[in-house]
Amino acid sequence: MIIIINPSTNERQLAQLQQEIEQAGCVVNRSADGLRTIFGLTGDVAKLDPEQLKSKPGVEKVVRLKEPYKKANRLFRATNTLVQTAGRQIGGDQLTVIAGPCSVESESQIVSIAAAVKAAGAGFLRGGAFKPRSSPYSFQGLKEEGLELLKIARAATGLPIVSEIMSVSMLDRFEQEVDVLQIGARNMQNFDLLKAVGQIRKPVLLKRGMSATIEEFLMSAEYIMVEGNENVILCERGIRTFETYTRNTLDLSAVLALKMQSHLPVLVDPSHAAGLSWMVESLSKAAVAVGADGLIIEVHNDPANAKCDGPQSITPARFADLMLSLRAIAQCENRVV
Amino acid sequence: MIIIINPSTNERQLAQLQQEIEQAGCVVNRSADGLRTIFGLTGDVAKLDPEQLKSKPGVEKVVRLKEPYKKANRLFRATNTLVQTAGRQIGGDQLTVIAGPCSVESESQIVSIAAAVKAAGAGFLRGGAFKPRSSPYSFQGLKEEGLELLKIARAATGLPIVSEIMSVSMLDRFEQEVDVLQIGARNMQNFDLLKAVGQIRKPVLLKRGMSATIEEFLMSAEYIMVEGNENVILCERGIRTFETYTRNTLDLSAVLALKMQSHLPVLVDPSHAAGLSWMVESLSKAAVAVGADGLIIEVHNDPANAKCDGPQSITPARFADLMLSLRAIAQCENRVV
Amino acid sequence: MIIIINPSTNERQLAQLQQEIEQAGCVVNRSADGLRTIFGLTGDVAKLDPEQLKSKPGVEKVVRLKEPYKKANRLFRATNTLVQTAGRQIGGDQLTVIAGPCSVESESQIVSIAAAVKAAGAGFLRGGAFKPRSSPYSFQGLKEEGLELLKIARAATGLPIVSEIMSVSMLDRFEQEVDVLQIGARNMQNFDLLKAVGQIRKPVLLKRGMSATIEEFLMSAEYIMVEGNENVILCERGIRTFETYTRNTLDLSAVLALKMQSHLPVLVDPSHAAGLSWMVESLSKAAVAVGADGLIIEVHNDPANAKCDGPQSITPARFADLMLSLRAIAQCENRVV
Amino acid sequence: MIIIINPSTNERQLAQLQQEIEQAGCVVNRSADGLRTIFGLTGDVAKLDPEQLKSKPGVEKVVRLKEPYKKANRLFRATNTLVQTAGRQIGGDQLTVIAGPCSVESESQIVSIAAAVKAAGAGFLRGGAFKPRSSPYSFQGLKEEGLELLKIARAATGLPIVSEIMSVSMLDRFEQEVDVLQIGARNMQNFDLLKAVGQIRKPVLLKRGMSATIEEFLMSAEYIMVEGNENVILCERGIRTFETYTRNTLDLSAVLALKMQSHLPVLVDPSHAAGLSWMVESLSKAAVAVGADGLIIEVHNDPANAKCDGPQSITPARFADLMLSLRAIAQCENRVV
Repeated sequence: MIIIINPSTNERQLAQLQQEIEQAGCVVNRSADGLRTIFGLTGDVAKLDPEQLKSKPGVEKVVRLKEPYKKANRLFRATNTLVQTAGRQIGGDQLTVIAGPCSVESESQIVSIAAAVKAAGAGFLRGGAFKPRSSPYSFQGLKEEGLELLKIARAATGLPIVSEIMSVSMLDRFEQEVDVLQIGARNMQNFDLLKAVGQIRKPVLLKRGMSATIEEFLMSAEYIMVEGNENVILCERGIRTFETYTRNTLDLSAVLALKMQSHLPVLVDPSHAAGLSWMVESLSKAAVAVGADGLIIEVHNDPANAKCDGPQSITPARFADLMLSLRAIAQCENRVV
Repeated sequence: MIIIINPSTNERQLAQLQQEIEQAGCVVNRSADGLRTIFGLTGDVAKLDPEQLKSKPGVEKVVRLKEPYKKANRLFRATNTLVQTAGRQIGGDQLTVIAGPCSVESESQIVSIAAAVKAAGAGFLRGGAFKPRSSPYSFQGLKEEGLELLKIARAATGLPIVSEIMSVSMLDRFEQEVDVLQIGARNMQNFDLLKAVGQIRKPVLLKRGMSATIEEFLMSAEYIMVEGNENVILCERGIRTFETYTRNTLDLSAVLALKMQSHLPVLVDPSHAAGLSWMVESLSKAAVAVGADGLIIEVHNDPANAKCDGPQSITPARFADLMLSLRAIAQCENRVV
Repeated sequence: MIIIINPSTNERQLAQLQQEIEQAGCVVNRSADGLRTIFGLTGDVAKLDPEQLKSKPGVEKVVRLKEPYKKANRLFRATNTLVQTAGRQIGGDQLTVIAGPCSVESESQIVSIAAAVKAAGAGFLRGGAFKPRSSPYSFQGLKEEGLELLKIARAATGLPIVSEIMSVSMLDRFEQEVDVLQIGARNMQNFDLLKAVGQIRKPVLLKRGMSATIEEFLMSAEYIMVEGNENVILCERGIRTFETYTRNTLDLSAVLALKMQSHLPVLVDPSHAAGLSWMVESLSKAAVAVGADGLIIEVHNDPANAKCDGPQSITPARFADLMLSLRAIAQCENRVV
Repeated sequence: MIIIINPSTNERQLAQLQQEIEQAGCVVNRSADGLRTIFGLTGDVAKLDPEQLKSKPGVEKVVRLKEPYKKANRLFRATNTLVQTAGRQIGGDQLTVIAGPCSVESESQIVSIAAAVKAAGAGFLRGGAFKPRSSPYSFQGLKEEGLELLKIARAATGLPIVSEIMSVSMLDRFEQEVDVLQIGARNMQNFDLLKAVGQIRKPVLLKRGMSATIEEFLMSAEYIMVEGNENVILCERGIRTFETYTRNTLDLSAVLALKMQSHLPVLVDPSHAAGLSWMVESLSKAAVAVGADGLIIEVHNDPANAKCDGPQSITPARFADLMLSLRAIAQCENRVV
């Protein structure tokens, strides 16, 4: 970190500032170039809060030279993290495709969708049991029963299951029953939940908050990792912008940014990003072309009667076609689906 | 709700759609004007999910005529809600001013700030015990000890206390010890937490999420109210936009929109909105002029050494000056501070 | 268009509203379904301004059923527009690749870049002569001299040239000397300029404004087309959002939306979107995978000394590599580069 | 400006970089603190383009210490600019209130509105003759005839007139006939138009672009001022955000930011910001409370039949009431209306 000192600062203030920084365990390398005094800080700089430094007398500007995340930072782990679970590997040459309905609705629904997406080549089954809905009057999911149905679908197909956890109180159950725990966009900064899933070792699929910067997103991953769980999978799912044609705006440059800054795998959710089923296929291909490690796609046997997210769900038949077109694009990127 | 039918829809599809809507308990008033068929729906329309209807065959457009919130809706309660607590009334002619530090740091800190803001005319003391921080390496608050110190400050000054609850597991303690429970912007759509605070009767200060629309904000209030707790206080605290000069962009038109759509009291947090202490006074005056029911302001005895939010905290002396200037503006609005 | 009448409206007001609409040349199909009166409008509805209707007494809601653009609307021209110029065709199976420096700097610079991008397979040379810069102190382009140098490069390589017009006063010269006139993002709603380029027949490359919706973008195309010039090429170049890691946020779902709503060709500019040269290759591949009709890419022989946009320019060598990888992706989409 | 050198840079690269900067007329003050080399630049640093520097080998980060605008910068002119025109002074203790219709529609319309707003205390008459409309099918203004009608209204009332110029070709006429030339939000970065109005001496009311940062806004003012016209009046009119309840989001913190960074007067346009007439009064009061130097308000005698912006126009009667309430708020700020 570098602190640029305001020219009007006197030596007493400088000494005071230097002392405070040193007390925090950092070394101050002072340089003066005729113009301004500059403090170059070494040592455990991550402990300093740049916001706090800005309020100190004499500080004109604080320039951070390192990103505030460590465990999620590619700087400290050059090779890509491969998250292992249920015999699958997320983040390697094989693309991860997670497919399934927005919410689990019945045994026949989830088992038949699971069978269909498996046949088409999906590696994981997704399905919501606990649903975060904007309205308290909307369907909130089958809850525990939904988890039971997911387990039946897993038993029937062998597909590991991905489901969203909304509450710390459900942690034990999710840890035992679910293969990948999803943290939804609305909970990306629910820090208590992040800390809780950091305590277990099951992989966590962390979705980007609707208005979260790349840095905030990685800081939320850091919350999980610093507790000990390094099996974090990032997921770009569209950000909120002024454009309303699509539900959100898919930010594919974020995939590149995340993979540059971090070693964690990055998936893309084209279904929530666009909110329009007819865009899912093209956006999926673009996600693979840009370098994403996989996709999470909403598939429903009967979108017109889906209990949620019908307008953005594709049918199993269209999912099977999509998998075929992904194969060709994946090959261009030296990957397999 | 009105459904506009696509002209290419046949009678069999129309009948099917009508039947589905009627099975959901609504009445379909069909009209045909030579142009298109239109379904006007009556009955318990709130049970229908417009998103779900959009996926049905034959539906061209769904036009909602009522807002999806009921309990928070001014339509169903014309008079302003007055939230009563600890002898105070929030939402009436007297403006509510909540002041205090971002986080409780020590007994002397919180007691002295409490005394100072009380002397200046504040009605409530705010102070964070559990702090939601973007970085796991930042100060996370004194937690339970912070609550104890807040109680000491309350005992010393008589000011009721406002503090943020981050986790359902702390609900009992907050219910017993805190006068107003705050739900932070990052938890505005933490629905489990909303439902939990809906179970108690202590007032809840609900902050608008960084990228929440007016409607989403009111739907989060609805989550609390539908559980039985109607003591909800809304708080506009700035939204995330492209502008980076300020930490967020204070949206004062939201105060007007919220008071038009809802009967709930609306406060403004100029400290988090701007993130710049020198803007707090002017934005506070603007908030009162626009019609807010009060303010929540960060006050710290030593901003340069505050453990968080130093750059946006004002000193007790400046807070006292601010209260004086608010008095004049409040008078123009026929209110008192 | 459908107008939903407020239930409290009396018959006199209804008659008055109906009369006003009929005087504007529309037919009112009135229907009443027991609930509300609904006006279904036919005739030359595009002449009505929905905003204006909203201010009329009795109007509860105005529902537009058609997009306000006609000439740009796919509804009225199902087949894709192929823009023809200089022996090239934009919008067909062959992808259009436009490459060259942000600004023309010297004869040797532009001629050598032109030769290099041609050798790599580019179809057009881009180069700025008149530069819209945020600062009056930044390099504003070589102006007329820049146009001369572009002509030399065209003569040397046979590549048609694309350059930005900033002012109506330069129209004659651009019409005679430039093959494709570019309208920059900042001028997307400079309506006088749009009308002026509508008067000529040279193709116009219209860039999306930084905060323009899909509809506003197409309305700007409409401004050009309604004057008689239907050779409009749309270009998505990133929108302004809260994210600052990239210069803008590339909105690839906009490509899909534009191609759904309109028959006009759609290009993507990954250089301005990201502002980071290392992202250009991956975003270009994603753009082709999503279905764009081509790309416009900044290529500079010496990015470190470029007079503008150095950080987002790639070298001719990297451009040649990019063209190779695009070939494979294009093939997946049944297109050629 | 300070350049932080990447630690992996060798001495030859350093010398090369230093030489390039010196050739641009700056002095390099090199300091090395054991950690990194830092270049502190003095001299005519404004000539350097930080973007360009970032592409140079060895540059890790570029830290700007001065804002890129000079003439608009408060640093170089501490006292507030007072723009003088037609016996009025904009930017002093007396608030400037500009009122009138979105567009001039007829002689009786503009003369009667002018008389009414004058009687209520407005200082200027606004009225659009040339209208920038999103749709080519919307009313485009009465053009030259509109200017003639504005002159008649000025003659009848003595109110100086404010009208929007959209094209350089109209400059002579506007210079001669209009008292304050308005540059609309869509033309904030129409640099040719900015340079043109910089050539004259009539005051220019420059509106903030829909997605313009504070800095971009001031750079556009700089474009005008650097040409010689220092009579620039800034106007905040709402920015584009995700919120759609209001047409735009009024950013009152921008008023504070602009007045901190610049000496130019700052007005607020609550009509375009909200797009809702019922919000105009409250937002106007907030604008005065926050410290704006005045307001520009749309007033129409018959909003339901206005040719544009009906939903956001207030009647002369409501304008008169508004002026009364502004008086009280202005007094709190030691200003007069």
